[in-house]
Amino acid sequence: MSVVIRHDDSEVLRSLLEVGVNLSAVRDRRRMLDMILGEARRLAGAEAGTLYVRKDQSLRFVATQNDRMDVSEIARHLLDKELPLSMDSLAGFVATTGQIMNIPNTRAVPPGMPFRINLDFDARTGYRTKSILALPLMCPDSRCPEGVCVGVLQLINCLDSNGHVAPFPNAERSGILTLGSMAAVTIHNLQLQEQLKQAHLDSIIRLSVAAEFRDDDTAAHIRRISRTSALVAAAAGLPPEQVELIQYASPMHDIGKIGIPDAILRKPGPLTPEERQVVQTHTTIGADILIRPDNELIAAAREVAISHHERWDGKGYPCHLAGEQIPLSGRVVALADVFDALVSERCYKKAYSHDKSLEIIRQEDGKGFDPRVTAAFFSVVDKVLESYGVQ
Amino acid sequence: MSVVIRHDDSEVLRSLLEVGVNLSAVRDRRRMLDMILGEARRLAGAEAGTLYVRKDQSLRFVATQNDRMDVSEIARHLLDKELPLSMDSLAGFVATTGQIMNIPNTRAVPPGMPFRINLDFDARTGYRTKSILALPLMCPDSRCPEGVCVGVLQLINCLDSNGHVAPFPNAERSGILTLGSMAAVTIHNLQLQEQLKQAHLDSIIRLSVAAEFRDDDTAAHIRRISRTSALVAAAAGLPPEQVELIQYASPMHDIGKIGIPDAILRKPGPLTPEERQVVQTHTTIGADILIRPDNELIAAAREVAISHHERWDGKGYPCHLAGEQIPLSGRVVALADVFDALVSERCYKKAYSHDKSLEIIRQEDGKGFDPRVTAAFFSVVDKVLESYGVQ
Repeated sequence: MSVVIRHDDSEVLRSLLEVGVNLSAVRDRRRMLDMILGEARRLAGAEAGTLYVRKDQSLRFVATQNDRMDVSEIARHLLDKELPLSMDSLAGFVATTGQIMNIPNTRAVPPGMPFRINLDFDARTGYRTKSILALPLMCPDSRCPEGVCVGVLQLINCLDSNGHVAPFPNAERSGILTLGSMAAVTIHNLQLQEQLKQAHLDSIIRLSVAAEFRDDDTAAHIRRISRTSALVAAAAGLPPEQVELIQYASPMHDIGKIGIPDAILRKPGPLTPEERQVVQTHTTIGADILIRPDNELIAAAREVAISHHERWDGKGYPCHLAGEQIPLSGRVVALADVFDALVSERCYKKAYSHDKSLEIIRQEDGKGFDPRVTAAFFSVVDKVLESYGVQ
Repeated sequence: MSVVIRHDDSEVLRSLLEVGVNLSAVRDRRRMLDMILGEARRLAGAEAGTLYVRKDQSLRFVATQNDRMDVSEIARHLLDKELPLSMDSLAGFVATTGQIMNIPNTRAVPPGMPFRINLDFDARTGYRTKSILALPLMCPDSRCPEGVCVGVLQLINCLDSNGHVAPFPNAERSGILTLGSMAAVTIHNLQLQEQLKQAHLDSIIRLSVAAEFRDDDTAAHIRRISRTSALVAAAAGLPPEQVELIQYASPMHDIGKIGIPDAILRKPGPLTPEERQVVQTHTTIGADILIRPDNELIAAAREVAISHHERWDGKGYPCHLAGEQIPLSGRVVALADVFDALVSERCYKKAYSHDKSLEIIRQEDGKGFDPRVTAAFFSVVDKVLESYGVQ
């Protein structure tokens, strides 16, 4: 688990230290990845660069930077695309073998290399990729002495003092190896944190389904409502922590249904007014189950459980709240829940088409739904439909 | 969020870098805290030292080291003890004000200082605490420009080249400030991770209770069974990750009771053989609910749900497994569950006294329970009883 630090330039050391401390304090994934790439380029004097993060048997494209041209459009297009972890590509080769590849000239790659350097980007943009330094990001691991590869850093076109493209110097001599170690540990820590969060969400969904004692199909619905709610909350401009809270809280919105007799809940025909009143108590039963929250997640879940059947025009239940009296989380989940119900088959109705369902949502704008939430929903409607299997 | 790094000795810089990378790769809390204290002492040339971590309005004593004497006994005694976050103590003063305190001689503290230096340790051991450098560990925080104090590092007795106690040099001049920043960020990251885990456990317990649609009292039982299981698993020598899995999985052991009719589950009198058979299906219903696990936690929960009523002698249910055929997690939770049932009042029985309950557990050693698990239980019985309110 130890790292050997060889370089001797104290300016470089100082700057690496600063990067290290800052890096481990960054909580935002995107910002962290951009910082790693930016600092690596600065240290190596690279005009451009690309960062891949490993995910199982593939490499995910997570950041690209280029000082000569605007790559924001390309970045948007390529972001989160995956490359198989194979020897065919340079990044795949580096990740698979754990070898550093220093290529002085992409047109003169020594024969016998199994990989092909992908120059599609050059062909499309007119950019000229000449020198490349590709570095595996190796994270120390107790089960594996040489460490585990968590990503690949690809630095492009080393600029000399005159601004001309030159080969990259030997990686051992700069601070780039140390930066690579720091980046690997930071990325790995972030991944562990994401795994913890994912396991938490899985548990919530699993147990919410169990609580309602329903089938696997319910799990898929709950997952989709959670995803739609998160997409809409983000599009409505909520900060990432709030988006995450809604994503985690929304699976519990119907937890109170556990208190409703099956005879009513699964009745095939229309409900009597009395039966409808009983069903409506699932909001307050949910709030009772989630009473005295021990953390902000349960507090948010309680808020959603009690408010996701309120309507913007005040005609909802159980409290007949209207407009901004209704918590935003409840307004968001209300729409996600109704949309999911519309496109799904239920014992009392057939599934509506996606277009018909969207039309109904639009008609309810300003009536059942907060206009801000409806607008946010339609701004991400393609992503929502994607999780419903629409291409 | 930026850190200013001033020192110029490249040997120090190199060593700090190495510590930084290693520190952020350490997953074990205890080891990480010891490493912070050890590296800080090494850098500052301190003979001894103490590390406190802030928790709400107190400082928790988490590590102590001393090159002159064996402090392991004292460490065991003081570990996790808390100090109020007030100006009365040196550590409290440093944490409250965010000021570095460099005290050349504890017998000549300038007048007007609000704190008292606690020399109980010296009085008890004959050690002589002369110079102290007390440093607040400040973590960058977006809401607070000067950062948030997450702990206090107290370095004791700076040794000069002849091994004599001298005052500590100015903190700005050594690498100790940078190490403090790195330590603060690392501690803060660990705390965030622990909060995530705690929230996860809270959700599991809350939803497991909801799934069984029971009362608050059930939550307390579930929490105690989870705690007892974790204590026993640790005492049985399982690695920390396994202990944690059992701690998280055990709350779901009775999740299958959701499939048992209330008329049977809450029947006050004794059950008929047919009714008993129905109750026993809660193990297999639980396994059905937790089928096709999406992560190792749900897999462990499934294992516990189906196996926690098996008996070491093969007379349990549902599979009549015996001995080591029964998963260890199931053997551990079996004991924790029975012990909780014994000391609790139920609709069909009174609560047994703790002593009587322990006697019954002992009688079942090698019959209902794995001797290894029984031995582990009795080795931590004081801690178990503590969570049952026994002093």
